[in-house]
Amino acid sequence: MIKTTEAARAYARANTQRFLDELFEMLRIPSVGADPEHAADMRRNAEWLAAHLAGLGLNQARVVETSGRPLVYGEWLGAGPDKRTVLIYGHYDVMPAAMEDGWKTPPFEPTIKDGIIYARGATDDKGQFFIQIKALESYLKAGGAAPVNVKFLLEGEEEASSPSLVPWVREHKDLLQADVCVISDSSMAAVETPAITHSLRGMTYLEAEVRGPREDLHSGLWGGATHNPALALVEILGKLYNADGTIAIPGFYDDVAPLTEAERAMLAKVPMTEENFMAATGVPAVWGDANYTVRERISARPTLDINGLWSGYSGPGPKTIIPARAGVKISARLVGNQDSHKIYDLIRKAILEAAPPTVNVEVRLLTTGKPALIPFDLPEMQAAARAFERGWGYTPVFTRGGGSIPIVAELADLMKAPVVMMGYGLDTDGLHAPNEHYRIDMFERGIQTAIVYLDELAQLPA
Amino acid sequence: MIKTTEAARAYARANTQRFLDELFEMLRIPSVGADPEHAADMRRNAEWLAAHLAGLGLNQARVVETSGRPLVYGEWLGAGPDKRTVLIYGHYDVMPAAMEDGWKTPPFEPTIKDGIIYARGATDDKGQFFIQIKALESYLKAGGAAPVNVKFLLEGEEEASSPSLVPWVREHKDLLQADVCVISDSSMAAVETPAITHSLRGMTYLEAEVRGPREDLHSGLWGGATHNPALALVEILGKLYNADGTIAIPGFYDDVAPLTEAERAMLAKVPMTEENFMAATGVPAVWGDANYTVRERISARPTLDINGLWSGYSGPGPKTIIPARAGVKISARLVGNQDSHKIYDLIRKAILEAAPPTVNVEVRLLTTGKPALIPFDLPEMQAAARAFERGWGYTPVFTRGGGSIPIVAELADLMKAPVVMMGYGLDTDGLHAPNEHYRIDMFERGIQTAIVYLDELAQLPA
Repeated sequence: MIKTTEAARAYARANTQRFLDELFEMLRIPSVGADPEHAADMRRNAEWLAAHLAGLGLNQARVVETSGRPLVYGEWLGAGPDKRTVLIYGHYDVMPAAMEDGWKTPPFEPTIKDGIIYARGATDDKGQFFIQIKALESYLKAGGAAPVNVKFLLEGEEEASSPSLVPWVREHKDLLQADVCVISDSSMAAVETPAITHSLRGMTYLEAEVRGPREDLHSGLWGGATHNPALALVEILGKLYNADGTIAIPGFYDDVAPLTEAERAMLAKVPMTEENFMAATGVPAVWGDANYTVRERISARPTLDINGLWSGYSGPGPKTIIPARAGVKISARLVGNQDSHKIYDLIRKAILEAAPPTVNVEVRLLTTGKPALIPFDLPEMQAAARAFERGWGYTPVFTRGGGSIPIVAELADLMKAPVVMMGYGLDTDGLHAPNEHYRIDMFERGIQTAIVYLDELAQLPA
Repeated sequence: MIKTTEAARAYARANTQRFLDELFEMLRIPSVGADPEHAADMRRNAEWLAAHLAGLGLNQARVVETSGRPLVYGEWLGAGPDKRTVLIYGHYDVMPAAMEDGWKTPPFEPTIKDGIIYARGATDDKGQFFIQIKALESYLKAGGAAPVNVKFLLEGEEEASSPSLVPWVREHKDLLQADVCVISDSSMAAVETPAITHSLRGMTYLEAEVRGPREDLHSGLWGGATHNPALALVEILGKLYNADGTIAIPGFYDDVAPLTEAERAMLAKVPMTEENFMAATGVPAVWGDANYTVRERISARPTLDINGLWSGYSGPGPKTIIPARAGVKISARLVGNQDSHKIYDLIRKAILEAAPPTVNVEVRLLTTGKPALIPFDLPEMQAAARAFERGWGYTPVFTRGGGSIPIVAELADLMKAPVVMMGYGLDTDGLHAPNEHYRIDMFERGIQTAIVYLDELAQLPA
C-alpha cells in the first residue's frame, strides 16, 4: 500500500503544471451561480467537469439535472466492496466578481503572480475540490487503482445555500452511501498550522424592502412631510443591534449552546490577535462582543451582518430626491442549536415591529443552512490529522469554521458518517472578495495530503 | 399696447403645434448635467438654444463658456432705453433619468398621452423657460416689437446648484442689468390656483463614505469582529434625527427665522391635507414635525433628507460579504437665515462625532444654495398677479416654494431688483422623478400669461 501511495505522490509532483493548466481551463468559466445571466456558464462548467471525470476513467460520470443548477456525479468503485467508500463533495459555483469591485486582474482570467493564482473560484472552491480529483487521478494513473472507493458529488448552488442539492441527496441516499464524507472548502490561518474544521456556522439570509412614495419624489416639493424610506430603513436596522455590538433581536441568542472550557482552549490554540485581525482585514479597530475573544467571535458565536444596502441615487453629483424605496440584504451566521428558520422568524418579526406606520416593509427569506458540529475524536478525523502530518508536513489543529457549508449538516445526518473538512485554503485568500487567490504550493501540498488521506482511510480497522 | 398684446396672444394660439415640435426637439437632447458622459449633450443643447434665439432675431445670442457647463445668452433691446428691461432666467440641464428607474416611456423621447407630455425636463425646466421664449417670439412675429426689453440667461448647472453661474453673473452685472428678473421654474397645486413663489429654500448637499476593511470580506470568516461599514453608517445616520422626525444635529435650527402669523395665514390659503399629500405621493401616512402643518413642513421649514444610500451587494440572490464601504448622499433644505456653509459644517461635525473608531469616515460637500425671500407687495409682484388673472384665467396666490433655485437669492442681491417666480408647472408633474410630465394646456396658458406679463410691466409707473 505504501508503495502505491508513493507512486501516486510522485505522479502528482511530476504533473503539477498540467494539473494547473486544467484548473485554469475551469477557472475561465464564469460560473456565477447567483446571476441568471450566467446560467449557460454554469451548465458549461458542469459539462466540463463530467467530461473530465469520465476522462479519468470514473463510472457514471454525468451531469445531473435538478430543479436548480445541475450537479455533477462520478464514481470509482474499483477498490471493491470490502474497502471503505469516500464521498467527496465540492462546488463549482462562485461568487459574483467584476473589475469595478476592485479586481486588479480579470476575475475569470487566472493570472499567476509570485506563485499565487488570482481568479474567482481559485480557493473557493474550484482549486480545492480539484485537489481531490487530482489525488484520485494520481492513484489511477500511477498504479491503476486507489486504496478506497471514491464518489464525487459536485454542486452549483453552494453559495445559494444548496436549495436543490439537499432534496436530491435525500432521494439518492443509496447512490451516495459512503463511510466518510470529505470536503475541501475551508481554510487555515497559516501554512504551518493546517486546520481540520469540525464545526461550521449555519445561515439565515434575508432581504427587506422599505417602500414609501409610489415614485422617487422631489425633495424640495415633498421633503419635510415624507418619511424618507432610506431613513426609515436606518431606523429599523438601528433597532436590531445594541450599542455594544451584540444583537438586540429578542430570542436571537436563546438556542446558542454555550462554549465549554475545552472548546475555548481548542480555539485558543489558533489565536487571532487584534493586530493580526487588523493587518489581515485593514480595519482600523476590531469590533464585537467583548465577552468573547476575536477567534471566538468569528467562529463560535452567531452574527448578524448587513451584506448590502441600497436606496435612491448613488451616481456622481447631487440628485435631490426622496427615494421611493430602500433595501437591505441581511445574513445571520448561526451556531450551536440555533434553527435557521426560527431565526428568520425572529429577525422578520423584529424588522416588522420596528417599521413605522409611515412606510410599508416587506421581508423575504433568501436562504438557510444548518450549523454543524463533528466530534474530533472519531477515527476518520484522527486519520485526517495523520494525513496532514505526512502529506502537508505540519500537524493540524481542529478548529471551528465561521463560514457555512449547508450540505455538511445534511450529509452528517443522512449518512450517519463523519464529514471531514480538510481545508487547503488560507483565511486570507480573499474568498468572496475582489482578488481571490490561491497559492500554488498549497495546491501541491493539498494533492499530497489528499493522496495520503485515502491511504490512511484504507488502513483504519474495519 | 393692448392691441399688440392681443396680436401676440393670437399668434401664440395659432402656433402651438409648432412650438411643441420645437420643444420636443430640445427634450430629445439628454442634457443630464450631473453625468460627465452627457457633456457633449449639454453642449449640443446650449448650441441648439443659442441658434434658436438667434433665429428669433435676438442680439448677442451665443453660447458662453464657463468653468463648468456652458451658459446661453441672448437679448432683444428694441423697446428702447426708456422702457423697462426684464431678465429671464431658465435652465436646460435636467435630472438623471433611465428606464430602469420606472419610466413607462423613454425619458428622452417625448410622448404625448391624454394631452400630457412625458419627458425628462418637460416641466423642469425646458417646458417652462421655453414658454418665455415663445412669448417674446409672439410679440416679435406678430407686431415686430415687444413692450419691454428682454434678456435671456439660460444655464446648465441649476441641478448642481449653479457653481459656475454665480461667479459669472457677478462678473457680468452690467450686461445682465435689468429692472426685474423672471423665472419660470416652480409650480402650483392646481390649475385653478396659480402660484407666484416668493420664497425658496436653500440647500446644502453632501456625501459621506464609511470605510472599514480594505476589501469586501467573507462574512463567515470575519463576521463578528468586523464593524460592518453599512451598520456603522446606519448608526451614524440614526444619530442625526430625533424620534419625532426633527433633526438632532446641534445648532441646525438656530438661524431659522420663526414663521409669523401673517405668513402662516398665507400658507394656509393653499392647504395641503394629509389625504391630499398621501394621494399625491402614495405614502401610507404623513410624517414630520407635528408642530407645523404639512404645507409648512414642505415649504417653510428646513429638512434633512437621505438622497442615496449604497453598500455591498444589491444584485439578485445572496452574497455573504461584509462590504468594505458604505456611502450616503444627504441634503438639507434651508430656510430663513440659515447659511448653507454653516449648516454643512454642523452636519459634517455631527457625522464625524457619531463615527465610531472601528471605521474611517470621510465627508464631502457637493453643493450649496442660499434661501431667498421676496416681498410680495412690490409692484412687479402685483403685476404678475394681474398677468395670471388675464392670461391664465385664475387669481394666483403668493406661496413659499419648498425647492431651491440657487441663483434667485444671488440675482436679487446683485441687481437690487425683484425676482418674480411665475411657475407654470403642477406640484404633481413628477419633477426629479420617473415619468416627469407637463400638460399641454398649461404650456398654452403659460405663454398667454407670459405675454400679458410683459404688457403689465410696460404699464407700471416708471
